[in-house]
Amino acid sequence: MSNITLIGAGTIGLSFCALHLTHHPTSKIIIHDPRPDLAAHIRALLPGYLLTLSVDALLASGQLRTAPTLEEAITPETDIVQEQGPENPAFKTALWPRVEALASDACLLWTSTSGIPASVQSVDMKDPGRLCVVHPFNPPHIMPLIEVVPSPLTSETLVQKAVDYFEGIQYKPVVLRKECKGFVLNRLAFALLREACHLVREGVTDVKGIDEIVENSLGIRWSIKGPFASYHDGGGKGGLGAFVANLEGTIQNCWDDAGTLGMQDEMLGGGGKWKDEVVRQTMEAYGEVKEQNFVVRDRVSRDVIKTIREGKAKTD
Amino acid sequence: MSNITLIGAGTIGLSFCALHLTHHPTSKIIIHDPRPDLAAHIRALLPGYLLTLSVDALLASGQLRTAPTLEEAITPETDIVQEQGPENPAFKTALWPRVEALASDACLLWTSTSGIPASVQSVDMKDPGRLCVVHPFNPPHIMPLIEVVPSPLTSETLVQKAVDYFEGIQYKPVVLRKECKGFVLNRLAFALLREACHLVREGVTDVKGIDEIVENSLGIRWSIKGPFASYHDGGGKGGLGAFVANLEGTIQNCWDDAGTLGMQDEMLGGGGKWKDEVVRQTMEAYGEVKEQNFVVRDRVSRDVIKTIREGKAKTD
Repeated sequence: MSNITLIGAGTIGLSFCALHLTHHPTSKIIIHDPRPDLAAHIRALLPGYLLTLSVDALLASGQLRTAPTLEEAITPETDIVQEQGPENPAFKTALWPRVEALASDACLLWTSTSGIPASVQSVDMKDPGRLCVVHPFNPPHIMPLIEVVPSPLTSETLVQKAVDYFEGIQYKPVVLRKECKGFVLNRLAFALLREACHLVREGVTDVKGIDEIVENSLGIRWSIKGPFASYHDGGGKGGLGAFVANLEGTIQNCWDDAGTLGMQDEMLGGGGKWKDEVVRQTMEAYGEVKEQNFVVRDRVSRDVIKTIREGKAKTD
Repeated sequence: MSNITLIGAGTIGLSFCALHLTHHPTSKIIIHDPRPDLAAHIRALLPGYLLTLSVDALLASGQLRTAPTLEEAITPETDIVQEQGPENPAFKTALWPRVEALASDACLLWTSTSGIPASVQSVDMKDPGRLCVVHPFNPPHIMPLIEVVPSPLTSETLVQKAVDYFEGIQYKPVVLRKECKGFVLNRLAFALLREACHLVREGVTDVKGIDEIVENSLGIRWSIKGPFASYHDGGGKGGLGAFVANLEGTIQNCWDDAGTLGMQDEMLGGGGKWKDEVVRQTMEAYGEVKEQNFVVRDRVSRDVIKTIREGKAKTD
């Protein structure tokens, strides 16, 4: 699995490029993107994703190459084609038959889409069962999660090969058993966001209050133990069963009282007004987004991931 | 604010005792609980919450005392009375007039309740505006969040005194501007839990998959930056406004497709069946809850909190 072709040199493409080169140091990467300044673009942006590797050295040695056409990007030796082009079903549906014609039978075909299922993208392929979604959490060169989402036609063997690759480089692939809108991580995040927007609209707290609450409680806890494992602990000896039995009424009360933004707006002809106030408060609280935001976020993310791994590995 | 009386010596009470003694080293604590073995109970369990302090030394010096009755627990010198007794409105409503009769006019009155609002607890008080909720995230001696929830009658001065106390010991108080069911942190967590249970029931993933997804993406991110700040960054130069404009359709699709567990069960006469499968899977995934779960969770939580503080404080 050493010859990897990346289609699309946006931020996700470059971040995946850094992921492969850093965590799989013998990989050889070809980046395909139709933009005319591809090499200059990579020289300008990729260094920000690579902590120690030199882009110039990688390009000089041929470990990293650019390809202006798909035909140059995919060879019989290509082991993995990974796509992160425009989030546009027409683009992706047209792409895969062309990829299929160029790639070997053994080549793995992955799409990093955040929402267009493999079953939609693969409709014009000869063998639609070859395609698999490998959806990252941004930025993929730092964050360990990969949602692996096969279509109903994707073979178990190909799913396992995606899992093996990412586990082999110490990432955390999680296989979804059914395609669904938005996959899982965004659906969970949007469910919390909906209630957060509702509570802001009701005047219970503001945008900054929501963020401070999450950062100082749920975020820390869930970085170490997910919601089910945490509530299982919360139930003590009786585990999740005891937790739920004890709090069922409270949970149900909160659910009954929860906001249904969007739906309500639709019914009331509100046209998405739920977002105006949170956008205003967010800009007021944080100002314009600066490059330094990402520097701090990414540095602390690396530190937290390391802290959690080392902390869990300790035996005492 | 040095003389603190804690009412209730359960896990939250002992954890708050450890919080005050550790972060406010000149505090003097009196613990009141009607249990006949109170001193032995504290000697047995409190050491687990105190990393370096000796319970025997604290008891010998009188910095920590036990009081079998409320009359012995509250003196004219008491600065703060903090209650974490049974989550039972009748208990709390009956307690506060007794506390009020014993405490000085300047004494702060706090309840650590997770759901019974100050406006309910204070109905029989002479001055119901004295009571304020200070709701922690478990365990409070480690997790920085305190939800400060005044009743509509609680004075701004008393709210500010609670904020000052917790900020003074490097905790993170967040003031809610309106009482609501479940306060904010549990409502946000339950909103995510609802969608998680829905996705498990739909067979998209299982309990372990949900936990792995959250631990390796949202948990890490939200420990560093809350949801609004994160999506603001996600919008790049245009901030949250650009993020929402770009993803509005996707967010709305996920919301329209989101589960409404509880509600549905009610309508279908399901009687809370949503929980049976997640409880079964959780037990299968994690087994019985052991003491070691908490040791690891708490140790790694301390490390993560330290890592985030140090990482954010660095200037580069």
